[in-house]
Amino acid sequence: MDIAILLFDRLTALDAVGPYEVLSRLPDANLTFVATEAGPTRTDTKALALVADATLADVPHPDILLVPGGPGQNEAEKDEAILDWLRTAHETTTWTTSVCTGSLVLGAAGLLEGKRATTYWLALDELAKYGATPTAERVVIDGKVVTAAGVSSGIDMALTLAAEVGGADLAQMLQLGIEYDPQPPFDSGSEAKAPAHIVEVFRASSRFILEGG
Amino acid sequence: MDIAILLFDRLTALDAVGPYEVLSRLPDANLTFVATEAGPTRTDTKALALVADATLADVPHPDILLVPGGPGQNEAEKDEAILDWLRTAHETTTWTTSVCTGSLVLGAAGLLEGKRATTYWLALDELAKYGATPTAERVVIDGKVVTAAGVSSGIDMALTLAAEVGGADLAQMLQLGIEYDPQPPFDSGSEAKAPAHIVEVFRASSRFILEGG
Repeated sequence: MDIAILLFDRLTALDAVGPYEVLSRLPDANLTFVATEAGPTRTDTKALALVADATLADVPHPDILLVPGGPGQNEAEKDEAILDWLRTAHETTTWTTSVCTGSLVLGAAGLLEGKRATTYWLALDELAKYGATPTAERVVIDGKVVTAAGVSSGIDMALTLAAEVGGADLAQMLQLGIEYDPQPPFDSGSEAKAPAHIVEVFRASSRFILEGG
Repeated sequence: MDIAILLFDRLTALDAVGPYEVLSRLPDANLTFVATEAGPTRTDTKALALVADATLADVPHPDILLVPGGPGQNEAEKDEAILDWLRTAHETTTWTTSVCTGSLVLGAAGLLEGKRATTYWLALDELAKYGATPTAERVVIDGKVVTAAGVSSGIDMALTLAAEVGGADLAQMLQLGIEYDPQPPFDSGSEAKAPAHIVEVFRASSRFILEGG
């Protein structure tokens, strides 16, 4: 089973690495990080580079493809090489997936037309411009298209996908493998749950995900 | 505030990237991935390389240091260059931290003597050989040493640390930033919660974290 995770400049690392940690451990998984050019790809904070081992052309027909988000998504949405690759790959994928604003890149490729989909909470309305129905859920499955909400939601999406691919026992084993028994010290992980003043400060801030860290 | 995250061959990527995604967004954070040699470091599955931008010698006195785990921890525990760096850095850190079996590397450096500490669930007993008190909690704080349980627990640890460093509002803003509102599709993330047959199969498997993916 070939799995391709797209990398691009100024992606948010956890969008890609959370799901990678689950999907790379699926039975018979052959997971490859791909980019328009092979080599190191610098993430949004500049403090980390993830290495793409292959170009887009090297993996034209993955069974599962995953598009992460991050501020670089703005350029990725306009990158015809990426959009062409996504369109062609999507014709033969079993699952086409995204995390965070990666869904906007799927949308730009025309793959969300008429689909329910989600994205990073601050970007949810933007899905409509691509003909998708913005859906404020953590993981949204519509046919073979699976979109996840912001950043850390990719872990939940990947476990959901693991259950679809290999059954509940496999997904639970993978969850135990990454000891994913989340115990955040606060309950501030969504617009609905975070204190109002936190949401307000966050919206006003320019230091975060959409703006580039 | 200088933050150093150690990389070594065959680390588990999420151990490092989960906390990175939080800690790199602390105010005034200057986060650097360090390794014995700068350049790409291949993770346990071989499907990903993370780039270390600096050598150990480049960042001798970080304010926060973080040691991830993964199967490569076995070699890291015997690597005198790493152990020397940890001992020297620890003298002046504000926080010395680990995720997963990274705590065994702290232990090998002599930094857990007499401390309560945690690690990956399958490795918990091994902490005793370094004079630590194995503590089956997700995040354990003992003085300035903060250890986290397996892989994904690094996110909880980093948010806990963010609150210590910058207060609850900051931690909650960072949590909202990575939309960390975990909704795993199963409740299988710890030895205590996973179904017994899952734990049994996992223990018998050689495909997972401790053994190298």
